[in-house]
Amino acid sequence: MEPFLDRLRTAQSDAGTCLCVGLDPDLDRMDEAWTRGVSPFVALNRFGQAIVRATAAVACAFKPNLAFYEAHGMAGLAALEELVGAIRRDAPHALVVLDGKRGDIGNTARLYAQSAFGWLGGDALTVSPYMGRDAVAPFLEYEGRAAFVLARTSNPSAAEVQDLRVNDEPLYRHVVRAATRWADGLPGTLGFVAGATDPAALAELRALAPTAPLLVPGVGTQGGDAEAVVAAAGDGPLLVNVGRAILYADDPRAEAERFAAALRV
Amino acid sequence: MEPFLDRLRTAQSDAGTCLCVGLDPDLDRMDEAWTRGVSPFVALNRFGQAIVRATAAVACAFKPNLAFYEAHGMAGLAALEELVGAIRRDAPHALVVLDGKRGDIGNTARLYAQSAFGWLGGDALTVSPYMGRDAVAPFLEYEGRAAFVLARTSNPSAAEVQDLRVNDEPLYRHVVRAATRWADGLPGTLGFVAGATDPAALAELRALAPTAPLLVPGVGTQGGDAEAVVAAAGDGPLLVNVGRAILYADDPRAEAERFAAALRV
Repeated sequence: MEPFLDRLRTAQSDAGTCLCVGLDPDLDRMDEAWTRGVSPFVALNRFGQAIVRATAAVACAFKPNLAFYEAHGMAGLAALEELVGAIRRDAPHALVVLDGKRGDIGNTARLYAQSAFGWLGGDALTVSPYMGRDAVAPFLEYEGRAAFVLARTSNPSAAEVQDLRVNDEPLYRHVVRAATRWADGLPGTLGFVAGATDPAALAELRALAPTAPLLVPGVGTQGGDAEAVVAAAGDGPLLVNVGRAILYADDPRAEAERFAAALRV
Repeated sequence: MEPFLDRLRTAQSDAGTCLCVGLDPDLDRMDEAWTRGVSPFVALNRFGQAIVRATAAVACAFKPNLAFYEAHGMAGLAALEELVGAIRRDAPHALVVLDGKRGDIGNTARLYAQSAFGWLGGDALTVSPYMGRDAVAPFLEYEGRAAFVLARTSNPSAAEVQDLRVNDEPLYRHVVRAATRWADGLPGTLGFVAGATDPAALAELRALAPTAPLLVPGVGTQGGDAEAVVAAAGDGPLLVNVGRAILYADDPRAEAERFAAALRV
């Protein structure tokens, strides 16, 4: 398989944007037309596939959030399998970034990699760094795939751990440097997750990891601004995720095009 | 539902031990008799149920590791559903601690809780603290259930992040104090994961969290010693997990009884 960064470049050139569409389908937030009288499997399936078709032309990637499928048990996971198939069929240029934030010891991480890259056939997975190199390296042993390590996330309480001061610097900077060492010599691509809501932190992260792809959630509903993110992320590879603001828009296609215009590459 | 700590006390009194049997079924490590000529679903199912039956009398809890099931896709997840049913049937006194190390923002964490406590019907889940309170509190909103937050894990690279110095103390101590604040006023039980391989760190953790249940993996194959763990964990509630050393023993029942003798309550 071609290196992840080459595939990302091609996907972005095909789509013309660095927009990643976050697939966090919440049955309680969908218009009732999707859910009335049908099973969760059918609702998740129809809704997800409609979003993929509506946004495929302007999305370089899709980011299914595994929790939104796991919450519905076997039916949800069957819908997730269908969703990945639908992306491959209706958006063949796009990458699939699975958002699972997995993180466990080496022998277990290898099985999460098998689940994400084997079973589900994803191109990348989000990964937690708390358990150190053991929890990250197994994902980077897959040539052509990527692991996006949580660095500085966009949620309100992220600072409680990620900004703790270590040698007069926030913890997340140490995580970025450590993960960069862990990736050394491995064939996969190391990326980082950094929230859109703090462009200054994003710019600092880019300075620490000039060539790593950054996956930036938090644009749209969470308040991050697309132009500010693009400016802060500089010249390195970038994926800007927009989820809820597109999924629950009256016209998801128009909303995706609006974000895409601010995220041209 | 009764509070988790009461249910844990009853389970330990019924089993007579604080032994938790870790269910990390690896098709490549099982005796060929389990896997020859059958599907992964059948092999996982028969093996898991045999371990549950062989160890039920001396186990107060079982800890299925979600990765070992997810790696096999839908078949593996179907086997996981069957496994939880088998524990409820053949070891009705025992608690089910799901080992998934989930950790995501609030609206997503709520869905992981729905998956772990609703779909799978687990009594507890392991959780990563890297994203702060948002990632932990939703699990503690379930009365009668528990979230075991990763504190100091037993894997070789754990120190690379968890021992980083914050105000002259290792990071994991800050995590324990912060998580204790996050749990304040919530009906669920907060516990911590702390590896068996460093009894001194375990004793320090017990001093920080005198009443929290500690889930201690790393006994057996990873080198931790059961007696040393019991001594270090003091008087507070304790679950000592033994996985591979029992699963792949020539006689899993005898091996579980041997560990149980060192883990009497």
